[in-house]
Amino acid sequence: MGRSLTRFTLLGSTGSVGTQTLDVVRSMPDRFELLGLAAGRNLDLLAKQAREFQPRYIWSSLAAQKPHAAAVGEIASAVGAQVMPMDEMAQDPELDVLVVGTAGRAGLEPTLEALARGVDVALANKEVVVMAGHLLRAAADRGQAQLRPVDSEHSAIWQCLWGEESNEIRRIILTASGGALRDLPEAALADVTPAQALNHPTWNMGQKITIDSASLMNKGMETIEARWLFDVPYERVEVLQHAESIVHSLVEMSDGSVKAQLGNPDMRLPIQCALAYPARLSPTVEPLDLAKLGSLHFQTPDFDRYPCLQLAMQAGKAAGTYPTVMAAADEIAVDAFLREQIRFTQIPGLIESAMSTHESVDEPSLEAIDAADAWARRRVTTALAEVATA
Amino acid sequence: MGRSLTRFTLLGSTGSVGTQTLDVVRSMPDRFELLGLAAGRNLDLLAKQAREFQPRYIWSSLAAQKPHAAAVGEIASAVGAQVMPMDEMAQDPELDVLVVGTAGRAGLEPTLEALARGVDVALANKEVVVMAGHLLRAAADRGQAQLRPVDSEHSAIWQCLWGEESNEIRRIILTASGGALRDLPEAALADVTPAQALNHPTWNMGQKITIDSASLMNKGMETIEARWLFDVPYERVEVLQHAESIVHSLVEMSDGSVKAQLGNPDMRLPIQCALAYPARLSPTVEPLDLAKLGSLHFQTPDFDRYPCLQLAMQAGKAAGTYPTVMAAADEIAVDAFLREQIRFTQIPGLIESAMSTHESVDEPSLEAIDAADAWARRRVTTALAEVATA
Repeated sequence: MGRSLTRFTLLGSTGSVGTQTLDVVRSMPDRFELLGLAAGRNLDLLAKQAREFQPRYIWSSLAAQKPHAAAVGEIASAVGAQVMPMDEMAQDPELDVLVVGTAGRAGLEPTLEALARGVDVALANKEVVVMAGHLLRAAADRGQAQLRPVDSEHSAIWQCLWGEESNEIRRIILTASGGALRDLPEAALADVTPAQALNHPTWNMGQKITIDSASLMNKGMETIEARWLFDVPYERVEVLQHAESIVHSLVEMSDGSVKAQLGNPDMRLPIQCALAYPARLSPTVEPLDLAKLGSLHFQTPDFDRYPCLQLAMQAGKAAGTYPTVMAAADEIAVDAFLREQIRFTQIPGLIESAMSTHESVDEPSLEAIDAADAWARRRVTTALAEVATA
Repeated sequence: MGRSLTRFTLLGSTGSVGTQTLDVVRSMPDRFELLGLAAGRNLDLLAKQAREFQPRYIWSSLAAQKPHAAAVGEIASAVGAQVMPMDEMAQDPELDVLVVGTAGRAGLEPTLEALARGVDVALANKEVVVMAGHLLRAAADRGQAQLRPVDSEHSAIWQCLWGEESNEIRRIILTASGGALRDLPEAALADVTPAQALNHPTWNMGQKITIDSASLMNKGMETIEARWLFDVPYERVEVLQHAESIVHSLVEMSDGSVKAQLGNPDMRLPIQCALAYPARLSPTVEPLDLAKLGSLHFQTPDFDRYPCLQLAMQAGKAAGTYPTVMAAADEIAVDAFLREQIRFTQIPGLIESAMSTHESVDEPSLEAIDAADAWARRRVTTALAEVATA
């Protein structure tokens, strides 16, 4: 493998995936060159990152807001960089890999822009695939670009598929830790506090995704991601509970051979794989010691206990704008749970109610997706107001 | 993957790997054409196989023995085939894959012949690699041929390495069931009967290899195989005890990512992979159900309990003709144990004694290997006679 330099731009640089991406790059500075940095509202960290990595251009979602635009401009000019919106960053002809570590809808246009221009995308922003998987697939095909997963589960499957023909996939088996509430009796779920649900047993991640892990909504969204990333029908995607989060996922090939990727739970490895593909660089993670772990456990998830998993899988199969509505409704509902406005067990009801009253649009355009997203947010916000006054 | 026909010749057709190879072919008759069949002494089964598969040429080790030559000739002429020695079979220009399912030294010349002519070899005969790994490697390089493993462990590693660069291997982790005696206290090993040692917990194999599994000699030989098949130094080959024989082996890449291949213990899958590579054909094995298994266990082998594992690893590292002497001494010692001439715990002492008095030849030729093999057999046979009269 040549020791070539990979030029990349990082969207969502101050989030969990963003900061870990910079950890990886910091440990191998001769392999990577950072072209652009885009963050949300954490200007202090963005300024610090800009000073360290000296990018050509920076962005913050605050740059579009009059009172903050000057502060963003100052961060840029201090390092001789330009302020540039994310979809413009994605158009730099020198760009090799766009790392999309944003959350929610934010990364969608830059991802489409990069793929359509033949730039490979390292994607950690799962809502983007859930909402617009068909558009991403089409853009990647048009631009002959690679959509590389950063999720540990999808990275595992991707790594297992190197050197395999994708039409020989018989079954994708996504592993699920079971989340923070897996050891609670089902009857206790109604009374869990946000703090309990945020206490993930194996992974250290952002708040929204940690709640989604506790409800298995996260795993449901991952079945939709798997469908689009690996171009397999839903019938071939399964979820397997695996308490230790060591086997990151598995894939069964057409001849019955099962391949798995394993490692300690550490996002830096999938990030590094997506950045450096096809090279394998130096390790940034602790070596796996299976003898020390002693045993690994597997069980079928209890589908009755996790209605969100079912809802996400239904939304994926129904396609159209259902996944968008499901994801938007979940975002509002999880936020309400975190603000202690609703119980943990009320999350699926709010999502189901939005999905059941939605009129889906087939093969939706970006506009139709945005309309469905806005509709679902209004719908669930109204429902929450009703819950509050009830 | 094209639906092309693979033309193969099967050496050792009446043994365990041979009959399972024919099982695979029988289930996908349109993918394979059998050119040649070679067996040992089981003429009845050879005749049956010849009638079913109608090969162009056949061989039996009895063909070289006057009183039996006519019987072999009859089997051949009954199906219009020719009697042909194995190394000549390996020279057929139409041959795509030579399946070497013989035991001991028998498969060595045909394997070298095939590789040097650019014919890929599916190799189940581990003694051949143990004795002459350097010659196999050189022949494969000269002929630009592929040496495909049929052992479940090495097949697992090979499958995990598809699409990877072999110079990025950090660690090969061979799994070991622990064999038939793994649950006995160490003090009881001296009194085990052949029947006990032949009762393998997870795999159904031939007698010699089952005893070698109980002593972990088999795993030691597999470290030597791994060294040659994947061209890695011994420092990068480890053994991990794994009771269930579901994870067939693992490989850690330079970035710390670990890949594993899993499946129910069934030789037909590795056989099929080696025959059909790079295609993945229809399954001939039961699908893996990890949730039903529930858990998988791992532990460091107890090296004091398994001196044969250590001896084999020492022989591999010492190289030269030490591995040949180790393998030959083991064969005679295991045979003596099966005939209840020595105790199970006397096997390693006989091997060690042969190794410690051997004068090794570096980078040995075939002749030097054969001389070392003959020397070791005489040496251990003499030692056994002394045991008998002591």
